[in-house]
Amino acid sequence: MLYIVGLGLGDEKDITVKGLEAVKSCNRIYLEHYTAILTVPKERLEALYGKPVLLADREMVESDLNSILEGADKVNVAFLVVGDPYGATTHTDLVLRAKELNIPVTSIHNASIMNAVGCCGLQLYNYGQTISIVFFLDNWRPDSFYDKIKQNRNIKLHTLCLLDIKVKEQSIENMARGRKIYEPPRYMTVNQAVEQLLEVEDNRKENVYNRNTIAVGMSRVGAPDQRIIAGTLEELLDADFGEPLHSLVLAGEMHFLEADSLRQYAINVDTFNKYAQVSDH
Amino acid sequence: MLYIVGLGLGDEKDITVKGLEAVKSCNRIYLEHYTAILTVPKERLEALYGKPVLLADREMVESDLNSILEGADKVNVAFLVVGDPYGATTHTDLVLRAKELNIPVTSIHNASIMNAVGCCGLQLYNYGQTISIVFFLDNWRPDSFYDKIKQNRNIKLHTLCLLDIKVKEQSIENMARGRKIYEPPRYMTVNQAVEQLLEVEDNRKENVYNRNTIAVGMSRVGAPDQRIIAGTLEELLDADFGEPLHSLVLAGEMHFLEADSLRQYAINVDTFNKYAQVSDH
Repeated sequence: MLYIVGLGLGDEKDITVKGLEAVKSCNRIYLEHYTAILTVPKERLEALYGKPVLLADREMVESDLNSILEGADKVNVAFLVVGDPYGATTHTDLVLRAKELNIPVTSIHNASIMNAVGCCGLQLYNYGQTISIVFFLDNWRPDSFYDKIKQNRNIKLHTLCLLDIKVKEQSIENMARGRKIYEPPRYMTVNQAVEQLLEVEDNRKENVYNRNTIAVGMSRVGAPDQRIIAGTLEELLDADFGEPLHSLVLAGEMHFLEADSLRQYAINVDTFNKYAQVSDH
Repeated sequence: MLYIVGLGLGDEKDITVKGLEAVKSCNRIYLEHYTAILTVPKERLEALYGKPVLLADREMVESDLNSILEGADKVNVAFLVVGDPYGATTHTDLVLRAKELNIPVTSIHNASIMNAVGCCGLQLYNYGQTISIVFFLDNWRPDSFYDKIKQNRNIKLHTLCLLDIKVKEQSIENMARGRKIYEPPRYMTVNQAVEQLLEVEDNRKENVYNRNTIAVGMSRVGAPDQRIIAGTLEELLDADFGEPLHSLVLAGEMHFLEADSLRQYAINVDTFNKYAQVSDH
């Protein structure tokens, strides 16, 4: 059996009771660690499970699914994913491959940023499509998210922005030379994301959002030290969110109950009240 | 401390290890049981927790928050929610009230249908706003969801439809007479939802979707006997999804990897291939 187990968002104890039982029954345990990160070192997982945990990087997951699945028709293998198992396409590939090999698959769900973001008070059913913001490079500043934000905002919906993570990436030079030397991990901050958003608006000038648009930054959602800070994009440019992971939500039109919830996290209640778009229905 | 604890989607063991520890530390434990349902009786929760669980119905949660919060500044109280704590506005109210009373609140996240729906293979970031479909009555057939589906489909996004739940509802006669007699619980099936969707399209005639639109019905997501069935709306009219809860997704334009995943659940691969809208980018 292949168990695909969501670990949730915080530390080792955010696994479900069912997930923990499954993991303890496994001969091999892999942890996917390039699309999201745990807030604790993997040794904490190993202590809870009483078993070693193997790190599965992008290279392994994208090119060597067979070694993960080896023998899973006879013994139990766990593939651990931060958040929920179906947050990333890669894990869908793993499920399809397992089915081709007649290996039974059980998924054990958990919280992910896609639903935990509800904790800021903006209702999940008022979100449009989720977008991703990647680190801009000198010559590569992809802004396709701008059109998606525009679509969402045209119909007054909120937009969850997932922020880039670079784990075990090679520099272009090292990649060209085939050297397996990796850069230190990088995680986009709310501040960096807001900077990039404003740069794109400055270039595209379609008035999709501006410096006074109300947004909410969140960090380490689900962890004891999570932070939720609401304000204008201008205000969020230098708000301190601390350690990764960070996420950002651009608020659309808010129901007054949503505004009541979000206001408690406002940097400045006056600017919040001035710029929040609130409906009474 | 008030702990708001998500129970996830399946049985008693879908609570997180952290959630279970919190619940075991509580003097009183409430289970919200009118916006979603567990797939197991509450006695199974009580056996795992070693404590009694009090049922909190709509009446209690909407009009008697203070009794839930009583003493929570001195002892621990748990409020259990099927899925994630922030699936419904009501629980936001509870958090705000607790803060007014200076009661510390800790939320423990979990899977909800809003993210677990990813298991059908349609990627979460390609969903638009989520809609709710309520039971039509003879003289009350609210179709505001139609406009929202239209907005989503105009920009090619998928639409998650949450289906109505009626728990501890009074008949109009009993309500008028002030008799606290409650109707048996009712849960909308995928078949009923599709019927209502088609009725609204027949009335509105804006060609937002039709009988050949590809959709996917899901039941008991996260439970061992979950069902995922993809097909045209016509085909889903009489597909058997078994026990509640049911959910429905109207597929927008699919990336070919999404189509590959969803196809494995198709009632009829030929009609699926004929009517699925698949992009190659």
